[in-house]
Formats: sequence, C-alpha cells, structure tokens
Amino acid sequence: MTIDLTHARALDAADPLAPFRNRFQLPDGIIYLDGNSLGPLPRATIERQRDMTTRQWGDGLIRSWNDADWIDAPARIGAKIARLIGAKPHEVLVADSVSVNIFKLLVAACRLSPERTQMLSEAGNFHTDLHIASGAAELLADMRLDVVERGALAGAIGADTNVALLTHVHYKTAERFDMAALTAKAQAAGARIVWDLSHSVGAVPLDLNGCGAELAVGCGYKYLNGGPGAPAFLYVAEALQDRLLSPLRGWFGHARPFAFEDRYEPAPGIARFQAGTPPMLSMDALEGGIASFDGVDMADVWEKSIKLFALFETLAAQHCEELSCISPSDPGARGSHISFRFDHAYELCQALIAAGVIGDFRAPDIIRFGLTPLYLGYEDVARAVAIMAEILDSGRYKQPRFAERGRVT
Amino acid sequence: MTIDLTHARALDAADPLAPFRNRFQLPDGIIYLDGNSLGPLPRATIERQRDMTTRQWGDGLIRSWNDADWIDAPARIGAKIARLIGAKPHEVLVADSVSVNIFKLLVAACRLSPERTQMLSEAGNFHTDLHIASGAAELLADMRLDVVERGALAGAIGADTNVALLTHVHYKTAERFDMAALTAKAQAAGARIVWDLSHSVGAVPLDLNGCGAELAVGCGYKYLNGGPGAPAFLYVAEALQDRLLSPLRGWFGHARPFAFEDRYEPAPGIARFQAGTPPMLSMDALEGGIASFDGVDMADVWEKSIKLFALFETLAAQHCEELSCISPSDPGARGSHISFRFDHAYELCQALIAAGVIGDFRAPDIIRFGLTPLYLGYEDVARAVAIMAEILDSGRYKQPRFAERGRVT
Repeated sequence: MTIDLTHARALDAADPLAPFRNRFQLPDGIIYLDGNSLGPLPRATIERQRDMTTRQWGDGLIRSWNDADWIDAPARIGAKIARLIGAKPHEVLVADSVSVNIFKLLVAACRLSPERTQMLSEAGNFHTDLHIASGAAELLADMRLDVVERGALAGAIGADTNVALLTHVHYKTAERFDMAALTAKAQAAGARIVWDLSHSVGAVPLDLNGCGAELAVGCGYKYLNGGPGAPAFLYVAEALQDRLLSPLRGWFGHARPFAFEDRYEPAPGIARFQAGTPPMLSMDALEGGIASFDGVDMADVWEKSIKLFALFETLAAQHCEELSCISPSDPGARGSHISFRFDHAYELCQALIAAGVIGDFRAPDIIRFGLTPLYLGYEDVARAVAIMAEILDSGRYKQPRFAERGRVT
Repeated sequence: MTIDLTHARALDAADPLAPFRNRFQLPDGIIYLDGNSLGPLPRATIERQRDMTTRQWGDGLIRSWNDADWIDAPARIGAKIARLIGAKPHEVLVADSVSVNIFKLLVAACRLSPERTQMLSEAGNFHTDLHIASGAAELLADMRLDVVERGALAGAIGADTNVALLTHVHYKTAERFDMAALTAKAQAAGARIVWDLSHSVGAVPLDLNGCGAELAVGCGYKYLNGGPGAPAFLYVAEALQDRLLSPLRGWFGHARPFAFEDRYEPAPGIARFQAGTPPMLSMDALEGGIASFDGVDMADVWEKSIKLFALFETLAAQHCEELSCISPSDPGARGSHISFRFDHAYELCQALIAAGVIGDFRAPDIIRFGLTPLYLGYEDVARAVAIMAEILDSGRYKQPRFAERGRVT
C-alpha cells in the first residue's frame, strides 16, 4: 500500500517551476490542495501589506490616492490580469466581487438587445451565478432565465438568446467548456456569453481575444493568490465597451468623479464598470498575488497541471479504489483540479485536514483537490494520495469527530 | 495676526477624549483635518493586519473561514456598528460599498410598493447617491427619480413617493437633516427613507431605532477609521428584514450558502443583503477601526465636536476673512466638519497640504475640514487656522504649483 516517492521526486527535480514555490509562505506540515478555493500567501505580500498599512495609509493618509496611485489600482491591476487571460490591458478592470460583476455584465448585455428575452445558464453551475442571474432576470422586463443541463446548452443558444452565463471550468467536476466553439456558436446566433473564469484564471490556458469572447468575470482569491475575498475582475472586449452601461452607477465609474456632478455620465471605456471606492488593502494584496506570476510562462503552468493531474489520477486509481474520479481525463476538457465522488466525502475531507492534507468538500458527496503548479510539487501529490489511501484503508474517516460540521464546509 | 494658543491648550488639558489620540498613528508634522474623507490608521490595526495576513491567511489558509470566524465577520462587525447608530445588533450588516448598498436598498424598497412611482433625492447630494438612484430608477418599470432642492424635499414627500434617498449630513456643507422629523413625515405619507450615514456615523448622535428609521447605509473609511475603501454597511429595521429582497442575490446571502443549491432562497434576516465573498483584509481593518471607539462615550465625541467647530469658526472669522463659512452654526443642524467657500479653495487646500495641514477641496469652490474628536486637539485647530491665515495673508496660495491638479482632487 505504500507509494514509492522516487518517481515523484524525479519529476520535482526536473520541474522548471519548482523555484517559484519559494514565493509562497506555506505552513509546515501541510500539503495544500485547496489553492483553487483560497490561494496561499505570497511572501512578498507580507511586506506589501505592511507598506500599504503603515506608509501608504498611515503616513500618506488621503494623499495616497494620488501619491501612491490608489486611484489607478482598478485599471492597473486589471491590466496585469489581462496578460493571464489573453486580453488587452484596457479590457480588464478590478472591482467588487464576482457576484456583483456578473450582475453588471448580465444586465448591461440584456439591455443592449432587449428584444431577445432568454438568459441562459447551466444547471448545477456555481450557485452564485444562478442566483445573480435569476435576480437580474426578475428585474428586467420580459427577461427569463432558462437553466438547462450541460449537454443541452449549446443546443439551447438560439434566436431568442440574449446572454448565456457559463462557467468556463466547473467548480465541482473541473469540466471545461470549449470557449472558442461556444463563443462562435453564440455569435452565429447573435447572442452573447458572459464567461465566469473563477476556476480558470491563473490555471488553464486562456485567450479571450483569440476566442472572440466579449464578456467575462473572474475571481481574485483562488489561483491568483489575492487573499481571502480578494476583489474580482471583469473583462469587456474593446468593441463593446462604449455600448454597455453598468446598472451600478457608482462615482468611481463616472467620467469625472471629482467634479461632483448631479448628472451621470459614464466614464469612457471599461472604467464605467467601477462602482464605489475600492477596498485598497484587499486590492493591494490582489496586486501582490498576481505578482506571484511575474516571470512565469503560463504554458509551463498548464503543462505541469496536466502532469500533476495524471499523477494524482493514476495513484488514486491504484490506491483509493473507493473514490470515483468525476473530472475529465482529457486535459483539453478540464481545469486544474481533480474531484472524486465518495459517499463519505465530507468525513474523508475532515480526516485529511486533520492529517495535514487540505482539500475541500463540495456538497453533497464530492471531494476536490486543487492542483496549483506554482507551489505544489509532485511529491506533495504522491504523499497526499498515500495519506488518503491510509485513511480509507484504516476506515479512520468514520470517527465521529470527522462528521462535525463547521459553518463553512 | 498670531493666534494665542493658551486657550486651546487649556481645552486640551481638560479634554476627556485626549487619551484616545494615542490609539492612532498620526504622522509627525501633520495636522489631519480630513478624517471625514479617510480616517487615520489605528495603531492596533498594524498588528491586526499582520495577524490577518500571516497567521489567519498564511497559516490558517482556507480553514480560517471557520477557525478565525471569517464567515461571521459581516454580521459581527455590523453588530459593532449598531452601537454607534442606535440599532439592534442584528439590524446592521457589513458588505460591499456604499454605492452598491444604496442600490440594494433602493431596489428592494421600490419593489415592496410598486404602485408608488416616485424615487426622491436632493439636488447636490453626494453624486454617487444620485447616480445609483438614477440607475435603479431606470431599471425598475414605471419608477422615476425626482431630484429636488434641499428646501423642497419635505414638501415633495407625498402619496406617490416610494423611497427618498437622503444623506443625513451633507458632504459639502455639513448640513444635517432632522432624521426624526423627516422619518415621521415619510411614514405619515406611507413612504420610506434610505438614510446615507456616510458623514454621520462615528461623529454625530444617531438613534435610528429611536427615530423609527427603516433603512440606512454608511461608510467605513471616514469617521470609522476602517482604512482606504473599507467595506460599507447597511441597516434594515427588524420589522422590514423578511419583507425585503436584495436584487444582488450573491451566495453569501443564501439561506444555505454551502449547500450549493440551484434554487435561490434568501437567508433569514439581514444576511440576505450579503452578495459575494467579503474582502477579508479590508473587513479586518474595518473591525479594527471600529475598535478605536471601544470605551468611548459617543456623547463625549459629539460634545467635543461642537467645541472644535466653535473654535475653528471663531478663529477663522477673526483671521481668515476671505473665507465664508457655509456650515450651520447651530450644532443641531450640522455634522462634524466645517466648510468654507473661497474662489481659490483648490489652491488654498494645496498650499495648506504643503504646510502640513490636510483638509480637502470639493469642487468647485469649497474647502472642508473634518473635526474628529478622537484624535484631533484644540491646539491642532488653532494652529491650522493660524497657518491658513498666514497663507491667505501672504497670498502664497497663488503660487502656480498649488494650481496643479492630481487625479484625485
């Protein structure tokens, strides 16, 4: 039952990304397989936060909006994300949360083509997407939300489709949509897609411009390592920017925020999608998280993700027969996590955490492991599977303490 | 022309709030009169941020949602704000920005009484309020936004009024509405008011429950010292909570966020007004900012504000004749800042900043000084007016360098 680590160690020794692990402060004794839920702390962020707190805020006070360039942070950080998703620098903006950004883009898109009355999304999509969409549809006259099974989505895009909200990589299964094909399909039908990149950005290859994608949102606190609840981003293709209006007309999206005018005039370009004052301490940590990709070739990241997945999949098939892998074996059809179905997924997840292996549980019966090439090694994966195999073999996960539920599961 | 500091020093010596100044890290050589725009750094926040970054995020990782009680932060911090505004602990929630929270409450209120078609606000209100309101009105069928002059507001509340959006203390003039009287007027007409407390909370006496106020929002980064762009809060009176629905149905406002259900079911109570994942680094700094009021009697704060204002007003009238005070002399009719009209307000503001006195400019011709009793002394006020008098007398503010504009003015 023991897993030989020789092979994994050889892979680590040959890994071109291995040096980047040192950019992160990872706690001793932990194998962290949940960077797709909350990325770890980049070491450089510690000093950034100290500087932001004591110098920029403490000493600079209100002057830092100019002197420390806080005012440009939403666009500046957006431009840094652009490189990771195949967008132009001025097509990405950091603002609010994923949920709020979905609302802005769905409503903006719907109002552009009010004669089309179908909003579309996937059954079992991450629930905030579905809830925001249903709320937006209720607000808009004559708009309805159709939620259909994954396999029926492409066929459901038609002449009445206004906008589809699709999550590029599924949070549970890691299934990945073919962005280019679906975007082409939507465009042929005169419809639009809002892509939710929360489980893609910083992990899988993305080329929004190359796919002709028009609208997207994404998360800052997963693979981007931006800290808990980091601000989110949104993408609007250049050609659409001046045609779309945000339903959330906050002052930061005004053409002249410091002229204090009663009349609303949207800022040119993507800046109109800002709403209120951005939370600068969290913004700065996001900028630090993105800096953890400086000098990193995203092709290397994806190549290593494929190998980490293959190792996990192979070892789990050999040593954890109780688990059924529900993530696609084909790398082109998946993201950067691996998920398994198991009746006691919750208890197994808790037993793993107690043993220093952190993955996460997704109701009702899924255990999920994030494969994050910047700081995860092959030996980590091999050790994690070995520990999981031991927990399964021993039945230790059945101990009552592992069934206790926290507020967050 | 010199101002004798003896009187101011005597006031400082007798000031019961004087010891609280030490709770803040104020830069040497600066008199900070802009705490109503961005509160200063509480010393304790430095250690809080270090702990939040390195221990809670770095070591705790995803576990901190439970172990460090991140999940309860929106309600927990809201309950701490409740004490400052005369609300019950479960009537206040921290979430998003002021702009986004205004949107939530306006839309929620409008949909409760759709037969009433007037949304009402004040000409010259802080512009984000007006813009968010106009955006909300455009989204809702048959709703219109009427923006009327301050003096005409009470008379404009009538049988067709759905909701009025009123800023309790005006950001420019410091004029304060009579919350109890206007709330009674609205209730008699069957209308509601959303109170924007951004320039009130942490400064002026507030008793939302006592006034019968139903809805409010407020800012975390001004008098609450929560850090740049700190998350905002919203208040919904207990009796209304289960009747209102947020238009922004993010997963954090779901009854069971970790059940990942396709169907939206709002959380009971005020929690339904959460949207996406809160930005925890900024949330924690807000909690630290509010802690700077621990043990502080808010009546003392207001009493000192009145005295600081009186001193500023008197000295400015004597020594800065070029300026016209536009803030009400009657303490019951104003907030905790003092504003002056002056044709060269921008240049004066810049010259003051260069001399270490930080106030702020509000277009087109207002200079504004925040009076923040927790960390501002009487001698600070006397010195600030003396420096301003010298700048005015010397005409030094006319130097071309003081006319240069930053992005943020």
